[in-house]
Amino acid sequence: MADLNDFPDVAGLSIGILGGTGDQGKGLARRFALAGHTVLIGSRSAERAREAAESIGVRGAENAAVAAEADIVIVAVPWDGHKATLESLRGELAGKIVVDCVNPLGFDKQGAYALPVEEGSAAQQAAAVLPDSRVVAAFHHVSAVILLDPEVDEVGLDVLVLGDDREATDLVQALASRIAGVRGVYGGRLRNAGQVEALTANLISINRRYKAHAGFRITDV
Amino acid sequence: MADLNDFPDVAGLSIGILGGTGDQGKGLARRFALAGHTVLIGSRSAERAREAAESIGVRGAENAAVAAEADIVIVAVPWDGHKATLESLRGELAGKIVVDCVNPLGFDKQGAYALPVEEGSAAQQAAAVLPDSRVVAAFHHVSAVILLDPEVDEVGLDVLVLGDDREATDLVQALASRIAGVRGVYGGRLRNAGQVEALTANLISINRRYKAHAGFRITDV
Repeated sequence: MADLNDFPDVAGLSIGILGGTGDQGKGLARRFALAGHTVLIGSRSAERAREAAESIGVRGAENAAVAAEADIVIVAVPWDGHKATLESLRGELAGKIVVDCVNPLGFDKQGAYALPVEEGSAAQQAAAVLPDSRVVAAFHHVSAVILLDPEVDEVGLDVLVLGDDREATDLVQALASRIAGVRGVYGGRLRNAGQVEALTANLISINRRYKAHAGFRITDV
Repeated sequence: MADLNDFPDVAGLSIGILGGTGDQGKGLARRFALAGHTVLIGSRSAERAREAAESIGVRGAENAAVAAEADIVIVAVPWDGHKATLESLRGELAGKIVVDCVNPLGFDKQGAYALPVEEGSAAQQAAAVLPDSRVVAAFHHVSAVILLDPEVDEVGLDVLVLGDDREATDLVQALASRIAGVRGVYGGRLRNAGQVEALTANLISINRRYKAHAGFRITDV
């Protein structure tokens, strides 16, 4: 039986965030920096990366430099550029744990909805594009507003971590649990990532109905 | 802004459960009976329905009789017979709120996975087959084991309620909240039901990894 308090030590790992100039990426960068990690924010433009990084006290660089340097790489790019960005970084990301947190969503006047993805999910697309990386899916439901809010000390939700490589999911669960108030909970294999990504559309509906920044806690775990 | 404590009064409504001889249906029947509702368990066989109903102290009958009599009808049939069962009950279900809790899942040696559904989800299939009913999706993640456990007084999780008819979703939220320890939380439109159904595969993975009967709580709501 898995134990949520028995994780590998990940305190020394550096974290790179591709697309780290967006709110989600910047929010995660801020929380990992608060937890004591070396954090690198990546962007297509080194200048924009440095600007975003400065605002939260970390380093910024081009996506390729970040992908090459960081121990663990989080993918927080817009869905639009997801496949092309990862294809262009295949070499830099080889051998690394790549954590995909991208939600393929569309929006219309009725709100958000899940976009169909040929590979089944953004995470499975990443795995297809990056055969030499260890792809994990996580951090889909963490509100950027809460991550960036200086008043919020404890984020207070669970992060579902999905993947087919037990060592990699254990490590990403440990990483998620470094954020104050977060538990990293194993959430299944990569083939079950699509619904986790799509569920972000439901959270957006919930946020609208209840004026909230909703997330999930897993009960009985 | 929606208020989780301001629900319509549903205490007097009778509840029919199609496929109520399965664990999920029987578990829901038991909890609604405990909450004081008249509950009718339906099955293709009146005899099997009566047997299951007796075991939890409610009434049982053929699906068609239950569909005709109950104020609200919950669909808890196996995915295999979902479409055909609903097609055969179109007349009985006309004008009623129909609550679909069916999860289209497949199983192999790696566990559970979401089956593709032409209409997008079981709930959307129900809406397509029952144009004269008000279809709501709910109760996907409630562990049958917990519902049936006489030691568990408080179920302790949230039920996501999805639908396009506000009056119907409000009413089903109220109904869910009649179960001790449960909150009925609005979870979005019917077009976003597929990922909620599919997420049951992830809960099965979580249950296996952590020896749990996992469910969800929505945070910040």
